[in-house]
Amino acid sequence: MALRTISAKSAAALDQELMSTGAFSIDQLMELAGLSVSQALFKLQPLSKGKRVLVACGPGNNGGDGLVAARHLFHYGYQPTIYYPKQSKNELYQRLSTQVRDLKIPFTEDFHQALSSTDHIIDAIFGFSFSGEVREPFPSVIEALRDTKIPILAVDAPSSWNIESGPPSSGPGAGFMPEALISLTAPKPLVKWFKGRHFVGGRFLSPAIADKYGLDVPKYEGLDQVLEVGVEGDGEGKL
Amino acid sequence: MALRTISAKSAAALDQELMSTGAFSIDQLMELAGLSVSQALFKLQPLSKGKRVLVACGPGNNGGDGLVAARHLFHYGYQPTIYYPKQSKNELYQRLSTQVRDLKIPFTEDFHQALSSTDHIIDAIFGFSFSGEVREPFPSVIEALRDTKIPILAVDAPSSWNIESGPPSSGPGAGFMPEALISLTAPKPLVKWFKGRHFVGGRFLSPAIADKYGLDVPKYEGLDQVLEVGVEGDGEGKL
Repeated sequence: MALRTISAKSAAALDQELMSTGAFSIDQLMELAGLSVSQALFKLQPLSKGKRVLVACGPGNNGGDGLVAARHLFHYGYQPTIYYPKQSKNELYQRLSTQVRDLKIPFTEDFHQALSSTDHIIDAIFGFSFSGEVREPFPSVIEALRDTKIPILAVDAPSSWNIESGPPSSGPGAGFMPEALISLTAPKPLVKWFKGRHFVGGRFLSPAIADKYGLDVPKYEGLDQVLEVGVEGDGEGKL
Repeated sequence: MALRTISAKSAAALDQELMSTGAFSIDQLMELAGLSVSQALFKLQPLSKGKRVLVACGPGNNGGDGLVAARHLFHYGYQPTIYYPKQSKNELYQRLSTQVRDLKIPFTEDFHQALSSTDHIIDAIFGFSFSGEVREPFPSVIEALRDTKIPILAVDAPSSWNIESGPPSSGPGAGFMPEALISLTAPKPLVKWFKGRHFVGGRFLSPAIADKYGLDVPKYEGLDQVLEVGVEGDGEGKL
């Protein structure tokens, strides 16, 4: 299935529209986003493949999605560990952190040690608002993600990738290709360069908003909050 | 499966605790509650049994759960219609209403007419904070729910039932027995008198909170946000 993509700028405008005239709160949208991330992980890496999930959270909304996903994964029976080195003062992220702490989900400060004792990884470091350079402490984290053999699910973007132009040609993310990607609401242009399993999540997109932004409403099945849209990488920028 | 029950007073305290020390927002909790209601309806009444769902919403949180459920049901492929005669000025309910209006889900003012053209019904009129009498315009609505043959899923309580002591012996709800009930977070004492299919929803209860309130964490399966806990009504107040 080919889904149309949305630029970083339009994705930001769409979020703003959902939260203004659309009357959604960020709490709602992040709950549904994180829920879809947790469902994609479950479908990719069922409990039979191991219970331990390392969730790497960045300082912004991508990290918030990671915190919500970690909470849902706990309720599915996984054992999440959270790496969240740049914890924001943002009130929502603080509340999402409290919610996972109340489940006794551990936070780690040592990413490299945590990497040695996990079965799966969620890369929720940078999302569609990322641009520019990877700041400390993330360069060595992204290098480790690039080099590990443990399967990674990236949220909206492999962290350090340019949203429009894809993989960086230099820096810690050069050569970083996660096993799987979940695009929230709609794929970003970077999917053209992505090779791996590809999911889409965010089953709240109205037909009217999809029309306005030139997007497809994915054909989700049953009660699923995610849809696997195929294996990307069949070449030449074809989605 | 027998799940321990929670009194109306304790359920209110639990909600307060989730939203204070638990750091959940009401937006999050209502999103997850409404999502579980939508999943129970889907499991009870798959699309093959008809797409039309009449969602009867009361003025409080039970009605809010109904609005969220209607939105998710739309995304599953149902055709919801909402009856919401006492629309609150509450900012959250107004936002939830906007979200369903943006999907072009119709609101009806004529419950009895709407009842003649639906396949399923959700009773989201009164929840665990109900006590006392049924005020206008709801008495005739509850009589119609009592008398219809169309399957009804009640949210947390068959509307007009006393939360602790169950079915009323007189008034519009005397003899009202919906086909199914979804208990949110934990069953209320009224389930002792309920005869029908029984679901529980709210897959966010932490082990610590469950312990504190003397509740069970239901054994949800897979990605489900609901669990069918059996057919109630095997008699003598046995749950």
